[in-house]
Amino acid sequence: MSETITLNPGELETLVRRALVASNTSENTAGSVARALVTAECAGQKGHGISRVASYSAQARSGKVDGHATPTLTAVKTATVHIDANHGFAYPAIDLAIETLPALTREHGLSAVGINHSHHSGQAGYHVERLAQQGVIAMMFGNSPQAIAPWGSTTPVYGTNPLAFAAPRKDASPLVVDLSLTKVARGKIMVAAKNDEAIPQGWALGPDGEPTTDPHLALKGTMLPIGDAKGAALAMVFEILAVALTGANFGYEASSFFEAEGDRPGVGQILIAFATDGIRDEGVFADRLEALLGLVASQEGVRLPGTRSQALKQVALKDGVTVSRAILADVQKIASSL
Amino acid sequence: MSETITLNPGELETLVRRALVASNTSENTAGSVARALVTAECAGQKGHGISRVASYSAQARSGKVDGHATPTLTAVKTATVHIDANHGFAYPAIDLAIETLPALTREHGLSAVGINHSHHSGQAGYHVERLAQQGVIAMMFGNSPQAIAPWGSTTPVYGTNPLAFAAPRKDASPLVVDLSLTKVARGKIMVAAKNDEAIPQGWALGPDGEPTTDPHLALKGTMLPIGDAKGAALAMVFEILAVALTGANFGYEASSFFEAEGDRPGVGQILIAFATDGIRDEGVFADRLEALLGLVASQEGVRLPGTRSQALKQVALKDGVTVSRAILADVQKIASSL
Repeated sequence: MSETITLNPGELETLVRRALVASNTSENTAGSVARALVTAECAGQKGHGISRVASYSAQARSGKVDGHATPTLTAVKTATVHIDANHGFAYPAIDLAIETLPALTREHGLSAVGINHSHHSGQAGYHVERLAQQGVIAMMFGNSPQAIAPWGSTTPVYGTNPLAFAAPRKDASPLVVDLSLTKVARGKIMVAAKNDEAIPQGWALGPDGEPTTDPHLALKGTMLPIGDAKGAALAMVFEILAVALTGANFGYEASSFFEAEGDRPGVGQILIAFATDGIRDEGVFADRLEALLGLVASQEGVRLPGTRSQALKQVALKDGVTVSRAILADVQKIASSL
Repeated sequence: MSETITLNPGELETLVRRALVASNTSENTAGSVARALVTAECAGQKGHGISRVASYSAQARSGKVDGHATPTLTAVKTATVHIDANHGFAYPAIDLAIETLPALTREHGLSAVGINHSHHSGQAGYHVERLAQQGVIAMMFGNSPQAIAPWGSTTPVYGTNPLAFAAPRKDASPLVVDLSLTKVARGKIMVAAKNDEAIPQGWALGPDGEPTTDPHLALKGTMLPIGDAKGAALAMVFEILAVALTGANFGYEASSFFEAEGDRPGVGQILIAFATDGIRDEGVFADRLEALLGLVASQEGVRLPGTRSQALKQVALKDGVTVSRAILADVQKIASSL
C-alpha cells in the first residue's frame, strides 16, 4: 500500500473540522482551524498542515487551548485595534483581524491589529495573502516558543519568529513572501532527531554554544538565525512588535505549541496593512510593482516568492491533495472519537 | 604625524556645513546633512560619516543632487503622508518626516511617511532613534543602488537595503537596531579592492554567479544577502515598501550615491511609527520591553543592539571625535573653496 493517499481538499477540511469538534472545540473555531491547516497542506507547507491535528486536538482536550474561546476586539486608536485571542486557537483571532483591516486601511492609509493570548499562527503567508486578495498590502510578524539566542549567548530567548508579506497584483495572484528567521525550519531538526540522522553544520548550536550535527543536542541548544547577529536582532524586533506592543508572552515565556500539558503559550501576532494608494496613486503602486516583478520573473533561474505554494494549491483544488496515510488515519481516529 | 586627529564634534559639523555651502547647497540643507554625517562619524559609522563629504559636494556641484531643493509634503490619508525630496539630499526630507510622524502616530496609533526622489539616507539608526526619543516606536525601510540578485540569478536588482528600528525605553536611551540585508557592507569590499586584498568566501559572487574572493570581481557581481533566498526575498519586500508605494526608483534603476555624473538616484524611504499605547496601555509596552531587554542584557557575552554606537557618541561629545587627517583635509579644502 502506498504511504500516501490523494483526496479532495473539501473532504479533508470536513474531516479535520470533525476531529476538532470531537476535541472540545466549537464548530466555528474548528472551521477556521480546519481551513488554515488544509490550506497549508495543499500549499505544500506540511509542517503547518494536518500533521498538527493530533497536537491541536490534544491541547483542546486538555484545555491548554480553549476551543470554545471567541476573540474579543477593542478599537484602540483610529487606525489600531487590539484583539484578545482569549487563549483559543490563533486562527479565529487572525480571521477577525483580516475582516477588520481592509476598511480601516483604506480610510487611514495604513492600520494595524495586535493579537495577544494567542497560539501557533501556522502558515503566515495564508493570512497576508487573504488581505492582499482584498486589495491591501499586508505584513504579519509573530513569535513562537524560544529557539534563537541573542547573538553571543547560548540561551534561547526569541522564537523562530515568522514574517509574512503580501501585495496585491493587477492581473495575477498576490505576491506572497513567507519566511522565518532561522536558517532552517525547526521541524527539519525534529525529523532528523526522530530518524537519528545527523544534521548539516550551520543549522544549530548545541547547549554549549558550539556548532553541532547531532539533532538531539540541537533541540536542546539554539537554532542559528539568518545573518547571525543580524537575524538575532530581527528576531528581537519581531518580539517587540508582536509581543511588547500587544502584551503577549515572549518566546522565552511561551510553552510548546505541540505538548498538551503546561501553561498556555500566550504568544502574539501583529498584522499591519497599507493601502496601495496610501502614499501615491494606486496606479503608481501597481505599475511600479509590475515593473519590479516582471524584471525579476524574467531572470533565468528565478522563481517569484510564493509561486510554488500557489501552484501546489491549484493542483490540489483540481486533482486533490496528497497526504500521509498514517497522519490521515490519526485524524480519522480523532474525528470518530466523538 | 598620526594619521588621525581628534576634534570637537560641533566644530566638525560647522566645517562640513561650510563645505556643503561652498558646494552649491543651501544653509538649511547643509546643516541637516552635516548633522547626519557628523552624528554617524561620532557613532563609529564612518561609512556614513565625513568620508561622504567629497562625493556629496561633487554631486551638489554637478547638480546630480539639488542642494537647494526643499522637500514638499502632501497629506494623503489620515495617517499617511508623502514627502517628495525633490532630488535633494535625503536628510531634509527625513527630518521633515521625523517632525511629522509623532503627532500623527499618537492620534492614529500608527502612521507612515513615504519619501521619493531621494538619495543616500546614511545611518538609518540615527533617524529612527530621533523618533524614539520623541516617544514613538519607529521603523525605516530604504533602498539603494543594485547590489543583491534575486535568489538564483546573477544580475543585481535590489539594493543592500537598510532596515532600522528603534523603541523608546523608560529610563534608558532608545533601543536601536540598524542593519542592511547583505552579509557585509559593500564598503568593506570597496576598501579591499582599493588595497588589492582578497575578501573572504561568502561575502559576494562574481558576475558569473560563482563565489569569489576577488574584490574587483565582487564589485562587478552581486553581494550575498543574509539567509540566502530569505534575505533576497526581504530585499524585495523593502523595495516594494520604500519604492513601489512611494513611486521611487528601484535599486536596478538607481544611479550611484558616489559618482558626481549620471542620472539622479531617485531612491525611496518609508518611515513607519507606532504609538506605545497603540495596541495596549503604554505601561504594558514599557514593562514588557524592559522584561525582554533586561533578560537579554543580563546574558553573558551579549550586548544590546545599538549600545556600541551610543557609547561612542557619548565619548565623542565628551572627548571629541577622532577622524582621518586625510579625509579632514579634503573637507577643509572643499570648505575653503567658497
